[in-house]
Amino acid sequence: MDASNGSQDTEQTLDSQVKAFFDSAPPLQNRNDIIQKLNHFIQLNSLSSENGIGKRIVCVTSGGTTAPLEQRCVRYVDNFSSGHRGATSTEYFLKAGYAVIFLYRRGSFQPFCRSLPDDPLLECFEATEGLNIQVREAYSKAVKTAIVDHHAAVDSGLLLKLPFSTIFEYLQMLQIISKPMKDIGPRAMFYLAAAVSDFYVPWKDMVEHKIQSGSHILDVKLVPVPKMLSVLRKDWAPLAFCISFKLETDSNILLNKARGALEKYNMHAVVANELSTRKEQVVVVTIDDKITVQRDKSKADDDVENPLIKLLSQRHSAYIEDPKRMR
Amino acid sequence: MDASNGSQDTEQTLDSQVKAFFDSAPPLQNRNDIIQKLNHFIQLNSLSSENGIGKRIVCVTSGGTTAPLEQRCVRYVDNFSSGHRGATSTEYFLKAGYAVIFLYRRGSFQPFCRSLPDDPLLECFEATEGLNIQVREAYSKAVKTAIVDHHAAVDSGLLLKLPFSTIFEYLQMLQIISKPMKDIGPRAMFYLAAAVSDFYVPWKDMVEHKIQSGSHILDVKLVPVPKMLSVLRKDWAPLAFCISFKLETDSNILLNKARGALEKYNMHAVVANELSTRKEQVVVVTIDDKITVQRDKSKADDDVENPLIKLLSQRHSAYIEDPKRMR
Repeated sequence: MDASNGSQDTEQTLDSQVKAFFDSAPPLQNRNDIIQKLNHFIQLNSLSSENGIGKRIVCVTSGGTTAPLEQRCVRYVDNFSSGHRGATSTEYFLKAGYAVIFLYRRGSFQPFCRSLPDDPLLECFEATEGLNIQVREAYSKAVKTAIVDHHAAVDSGLLLKLPFSTIFEYLQMLQIISKPMKDIGPRAMFYLAAAVSDFYVPWKDMVEHKIQSGSHILDVKLVPVPKMLSVLRKDWAPLAFCISFKLETDSNILLNKARGALEKYNMHAVVANELSTRKEQVVVVTIDDKITVQRDKSKADDDVENPLIKLLSQRHSAYIEDPKRMR
Repeated sequence: MDASNGSQDTEQTLDSQVKAFFDSAPPLQNRNDIIQKLNHFIQLNSLSSENGIGKRIVCVTSGGTTAPLEQRCVRYVDNFSSGHRGATSTEYFLKAGYAVIFLYRRGSFQPFCRSLPDDPLLECFEATEGLNIQVREAYSKAVKTAIVDHHAAVDSGLLLKLPFSTIFEYLQMLQIISKPMKDIGPRAMFYLAAAVSDFYVPWKDMVEHKIQSGSHILDVKLVPVPKMLSVLRKDWAPLAFCISFKLETDSNILLNKARGALEKYNMHAVVANELSTRKEQVVVVTIDDKITVQRDKSKADDDVENPLIKLLSQRHSAYIEDPKRMR
């Protein structure tokens, strides 16, 4: 078997894994509603630019996906991710002039809401003596930003929010989003910050009812989630500018892993971040570069996403002008 | 080996499992702070009743626990539970005159907040033209209830809220709570509505860093969580009135399972609920009775927790008068 045949085999394997994943997935509940919202959003923003060529549109994915262990789901494997990166990046993408499709895990951080405490409604408000309610002094700025800026972005048609929970929902929604994104060619960006499960239990292999406890050991066997990044780049939206993330807790293997992902999935850039320092700095790994991006520590409220989105926006502009130059 | 020796063996096994669990658990971060709050809360409510014998105090546990798969936790197994049952029950316990320790999963439903949508801050408020914020008409009642009633309960010292995420946090906190609860004898109640993991990975068996993905199958082996209900009844707070829950998706096995749990853990009652009908009806299983409790369907906003807490409160009163009559 020669190399080209080997590669063909791998592709066939991936294709069959992808087919098995989608065949096995429970159908998305509100599929038609999502498609309608998306088409409307992309159409609106494709027409709206002054120069007539339409806005750049980024799909930001955010938060972790769950992999159910039972069909009537009581137990599942979850990937930790607060969604802070995705929510913060969305704010900077809007500032940079993008329209944003925010594909987020239910309950994860929302754009313009990251200075809020947990349970913001209970924490940020108090009852007055006349039993009316008012914002607590300490939170008045954070609450105003959250409500005013968030609603302004949604109401002006620049921010479309789509929630998911399971890996089945996430990948089906990503595929649906890629269809109208494909139509806008290199103006589309995917910024894949979600912490996607690497493993799942195929729907048909799951028990229907709750797994019974007992004195025995629970042995859960999960199979790898097919590498949809490859499929996204190759088939779903081949001209879109694609950024993926690599998070590791072990800094020794991080950059090699990021470089590996860049090549394996043919990404335009991989953002490498280490769990403990991820809010201070990241490394943007491209085919020619490794650029360390740090937040401006002289400003208390600067975010690493500020210089990160500036850099990616510049790279994206260069890519739009000449898609062939950056692969 | 005769029967009594067999039972001794089982006890020794449980004791060693319990020891192994707590020895393996990462120490609770804010242990001293929790103990201080608890002691203050129980002291305050033990003295506060008109008749001088103090209030009844219930510990309501709520939401699901997580079992981490990695020490620097990225992946974990989660048990689904919105915490609706625990939050709603807390409201009715307060109404019935109890002081409530609400031991809840971070992010789960909070008392007086269950009519609110997801993301209540963003959904319930809007910006006015002058860029001030106001409650949306449709949510004005729900928002007012949430803030006024919730804060009134906390501020008056009748509601103590303690959050957890992992099974390690949950069981350590339950043990801590049981100490001052033991001191108030039969006036204490445990209402164990949390969906506690049946399985966990012992801390020392966990990999330190993120599990690497690859083309292989992920085989996760979890061991049973020791049956702490037995330990709670036998050692931690032997006089407390103890209610546990049994949730199944398969109604055929539900009542037998509930009856089994009642006997095995020596509970005073087990509330049996089936996933699909749990907001309409439950069955309270005691040593002598099986009582079906249903919400009053003639009232749109009645909850099954309304008659359920009334029944349990009556049973608890009878138990306080004569703890020996009900075991």
